[in-house]
Amino acid sequence: MSASDAVRLPSPAPTGAAASPAAGEREFVLTLSCTNTRGIVHAVSGALLEVDADITESQQYDSPDTGTFFMRVEFHTPAARDAVDAALAPVGERFGMHLQLWDAAVRTRTLVMCSKDGHTLNDLLFQQRAGTLPIEIPVVVSNHLDLQPLASFYGVPFIHVPVSATGTQTKAAAEARLRELIEEFDIDLVVLARYMQILSDELCAELEGRAINIHHSFLPSFKGARPYHQAHERGVKLIGATAHYVTADLDEGPIIAQSVQPVTHAQTAADFVARGRHVEGNTLVQAVRWHAQHRVLLDGRRTVVFG
Amino acid sequence: MSASDAVRLPSPAPTGAAASPAAGEREFVLTLSCTNTRGIVHAVSGALLEVDADITESQQYDSPDTGTFFMRVEFHTPAARDAVDAALAPVGERFGMHLQLWDAAVRTRTLVMCSKDGHTLNDLLFQQRAGTLPIEIPVVVSNHLDLQPLASFYGVPFIHVPVSATGTQTKAAAEARLRELIEEFDIDLVVLARYMQILSDELCAELEGRAINIHHSFLPSFKGARPYHQAHERGVKLIGATAHYVTADLDEGPIIAQSVQPVTHAQTAADFVARGRHVEGNTLVQAVRWHAQHRVLLDGRRTVVFG
Amino acid sequence: MSASDAVRLPSPAPTGAAASPAAGEREFVLTLSCTNTRGIVHAVSGALLEVDADITESQQYDSPDTGTFFMRVEFHTPAARDAVDAALAPVGERFGMHLQLWDAAVRTRTLVMCSKDGHTLNDLLFQQRAGTLPIEIPVVVSNHLDLQPLASFYGVPFIHVPVSATGTQTKAAAEARLRELIEEFDIDLVVLARYMQILSDELCAELEGRAINIHHSFLPSFKGARPYHQAHERGVKLIGATAHYVTADLDEGPIIAQSVQPVTHAQTAADFVARGRHVEGNTLVQAVRWHAQHRVLLDGRRTVVFG
Amino acid sequence: MSASDAVRLPSPAPTGAAASPAAGEREFVLTLSCTNTRGIVHAVSGALLEVDADITESQQYDSPDTGTFFMRVEFHTPAARDAVDAALAPVGERFGMHLQLWDAAVRTRTLVMCSKDGHTLNDLLFQQRAGTLPIEIPVVVSNHLDLQPLASFYGVPFIHVPVSATGTQTKAAAEARLRELIEEFDIDLVVLARYMQILSDELCAELEGRAINIHHSFLPSFKGARPYHQAHERGVKLIGATAHYVTADLDEGPIIAQSVQPVTHAQTAADFVARGRHVEGNTLVQAVRWHAQHRVLLDGRRTVVFG
Repeated sequence: MSASDAVRLPSPAPTGAAASPAAGEREFVLTLSCTNTRGIVHAVSGALLEVDADITESQQYDSPDTGTFFMRVEFHTPAARDAVDAALAPVGERFGMHLQLWDAAVRTRTLVMCSKDGHTLNDLLFQQRAGTLPIEIPVVVSNHLDLQPLASFYGVPFIHVPVSATGTQTKAAAEARLRELIEEFDIDLVVLARYMQILSDELCAELEGRAINIHHSFLPSFKGARPYHQAHERGVKLIGATAHYVTADLDEGPIIAQSVQPVTHAQTAADFVARGRHVEGNTLVQAVRWHAQHRVLLDGRRTVVFG
Repeated sequence: MSASDAVRLPSPAPTGAAASPAAGEREFVLTLSCTNTRGIVHAVSGALLEVDADITESQQYDSPDTGTFFMRVEFHTPAARDAVDAALAPVGERFGMHLQLWDAAVRTRTLVMCSKDGHTLNDLLFQQRAGTLPIEIPVVVSNHLDLQPLASFYGVPFIHVPVSATGTQTKAAAEARLRELIEEFDIDLVVLARYMQILSDELCAELEGRAINIHHSFLPSFKGARPYHQAHERGVKLIGATAHYVTADLDEGPIIAQSVQPVTHAQTAADFVARGRHVEGNTLVQAVRWHAQHRVLLDGRRTVVFG
Repeated sequence: MSASDAVRLPSPAPTGAAASPAAGEREFVLTLSCTNTRGIVHAVSGALLEVDADITESQQYDSPDTGTFFMRVEFHTPAARDAVDAALAPVGERFGMHLQLWDAAVRTRTLVMCSKDGHTLNDLLFQQRAGTLPIEIPVVVSNHLDLQPLASFYGVPFIHVPVSATGTQTKAAAEARLRELIEEFDIDLVVLARYMQILSDELCAELEGRAINIHHSFLPSFKGARPYHQAHERGVKLIGATAHYVTADLDEGPIIAQSVQPVTHAQTAADFVARGRHVEGNTLVQAVRWHAQHRVLLDGRRTVVFG
Repeated sequence: MSASDAVRLPSPAPTGAAASPAAGEREFVLTLSCTNTRGIVHAVSGALLEVDADITESQQYDSPDTGTFFMRVEFHTPAARDAVDAALAPVGERFGMHLQLWDAAVRTRTLVMCSKDGHTLNDLLFQQRAGTLPIEIPVVVSNHLDLQPLASFYGVPFIHVPVSATGTQTKAAAEARLRELIEEFDIDLVVLARYMQILSDELCAELEGRAINIHHSFLPSFKGARPYHQAHERGVKLIGATAHYVTADLDEGPIIAQSVQPVTHAQTAADFVARGRHVEGNTLVQAVRWHAQHRVLLDGRRTVVFG
């Protein structure tokens, strides 16, 4: 959904692709989790052999705390999707797996929410266009108008959804509008790119595992508002950023990625804000990239990241 | 010099400013170097007291290898520039100083050169606009057309200067055009933002201390072409980027800033390229920011960075 | 105080010394703080010129939050200490400075407290012996006997001060013994090297600015007991260590140094413990080194580190 | 081989072990490589199922450059070693695998070579004793006597093998002695812990894949002698350390682990030496730990590290 007269950057071929499948082959990503027991890998690899799959990457993890086994396999096969599903179904049933088969050619449709600060939106849009972030961004939503030109430059529709305490723009109305947009644009993932409104508990629950936020601190330090000012007050010598799944408890959701940046006494809280920006951008893009590549699985309150 | 009908981002107030001078006061940065001896600090601080300067930051370094003393002072004063020059002149003469007084309100006019890869240009333009990079970018020059839309979005004139082996677009012709542009736009600094042409020895000499390049390796490893491929071949476990002043010896100039990024056996050379991008951007922006703030002084083949 | 028959490592000359003073000269470190105003640097440098001081390093900082000016100067001079004190006294008085003049040849006498975990004690003892940590360690104190052999190897007296709830070894008795040892050994600094007992509020107050603890998390995350287990529970992707001055509020004191280490879902809490060790050691040694070099000044709840 | 009257540190249980096998079960590590093709994982997991193996960790990698498949599996089984070998043999033959089965209870017998600088030897000895480095150190060899007390403290035999240009202590004689010791102590791995002699090409060839060196730079920068001085000369802003397998080409061997440390203009070459020490120690210990856990496989000139 691109505006035909928008100013466009050239779109180079995506980088980072694994060895391309041969003509006629399809590339898939399989993710699964189940109670750990013997025989899982043998059964899964057996099913993949049945469909002449060529495995290009495989990772697994056996969580001692929850007794859960996790696996992610990338493969290509001449078989049709139905055949792959059919080969995997008995295995999934036998082990009581939560199993998902992803078509690697289908990109994660991502709705980005932002407010006034555009640096993480800019990183997402640029990298998506440059081919280093394998998602689609069909729409940007914001409670302010400031970032509309940036979205337009990338040819992405920008929907202004203001939020105020009264009138027709209450949070409830804004969230209703958001749900409509998620449906209308067939959205897989919501990314809060320095979006300053707090989502309601209901919306958080509906978006469980499908909404990623970037918090500008090294969680669990400095939750909530103005983390850089809190950090400066505490006199820490490192500031950070955390990308995590959104849950009803603010800044408590499962962590996907974290980075830090050194600071000294000589930096003011405003300097922390300036310095923190590129760390926020990198951390959010990394988390979104991993999610889009189906590399992040949930293990209770934690994430398993097959990076 | 902004195109009135270009799509524009809002321009927030610059962050990171030190305590603002009072009304009627001017802010200056003083940088100096001279042979080390006693009494320098006393003389300099004395001269500044004469003009009622309020020092907001001061750093010094005494190089044991070259016997050179370096100093950088930020201050504001109600005095006019002439008065400050007059107070400092005898000190500069007494110690044989190379001394420069910069008006902190005057921004470094920066000409950015690029080719096809736009990520570092994007970082420079975005941060300049956002106020976190205190430079002016009056013009972008490129040997390709790919990045013209990006420059236009930021309202920056884009000059296409192709380079080919024969005809009217030889390197010599291109460099002559560059010199004209440097003069026409009153340029202080040239930044090579993944510009793929190698500058001639003459041009390097003319631009000594005024041209910054970003090389996508951790120098002195992997000079020259395709450093990520060289790095991959060698099997290093960290890739990096180096921002340095340009000299006639390719990738040999004084280093300003360096960063690294971990990699594993599982990443291909193409992955190195993708991963390296944000490190290149951060490193180049950091070096340009420090240069624009007059924080980088040359000490032989090395830099003194009063960061 | 070295046991003549202890197994001893050779003691190489200290590294990292600045340009040595000439014969007959003394090396000093001056630290000072006062309300910020004009003329401080001019006055201090003037006083130092009076005693023919050769400044080898000088750093200053002007805290916008507290309005406090901090300075640290390293210099050598042919003058006697009395003369230097006399030259500085009027300056100190004029600006209401908290001023301290340190003889650089006099090492910080450090009492190290430990329990069962010996890795940070090992780092401190080794680096002190190797000359890379400019302190004296006249005594090690522990509530267990496990680390006595390690102290003996380095020829350092080991005093066993057990702590139990009742009988003669209560915490109060142990702290009384500690005070005696601090007096007896003329101690300047107490370092808690994974010492597992919590100091009383009174003792913390007495040791204000003179006791450094290493906490095995990135504060303010995971205060108190078993921080690696808390970190594992939360699913963070970085673990850390924080060296800070001890105050009555557990793990709340001014931070001197912090470092982090990446972890993944595949590491257990026990792995966090193993991985965190070298970060704890480096961070504690760095903080102790800076303190011993008089590079750490207190600015309210934060530290100014002239590293 | 411990001296009964040596001063000994207590020996806590090793940390970092995976879920312990049940009574009567044995723990193994399987590593293999072969030309990549379909069916490998299915065949290997099938063989392991035959012996009722419980897989605790499994990693694989498919090298696009060399077409080689690598795998490492940790498992425990009630079966005897013979049975496991028998189950795996047909799989190894079918795929032309280079396959090794390691008993996880058997530690890598490591001969450490050192000269005068003891910090990396100290890290190896301490961590081995503390249980965080799963190796045996039956003997330390040195061309100097300086570090004998340190080895004695840990109860490790210390063999002095001086090297000089003439007389009976030529390099050839020293290397002959080393070969004897490798045989006598049944050595699996030689670690050069800042050992300053260069091994002959013949010895390097004999020790291929079994000798690890720590070079105090970020290779391939600054090979050879005095890398910190070379680094200081070049004015880099990061110094580093590289642990690699030893080959006949000095500092050219496959890299296992690398780390960096920031430096500024204010540090002298001697400061680089002091600062670099802990990075060298951590990097060497990490490489030795991975090797001892059979996590490092050779892929041409590079390593695959299943960390």
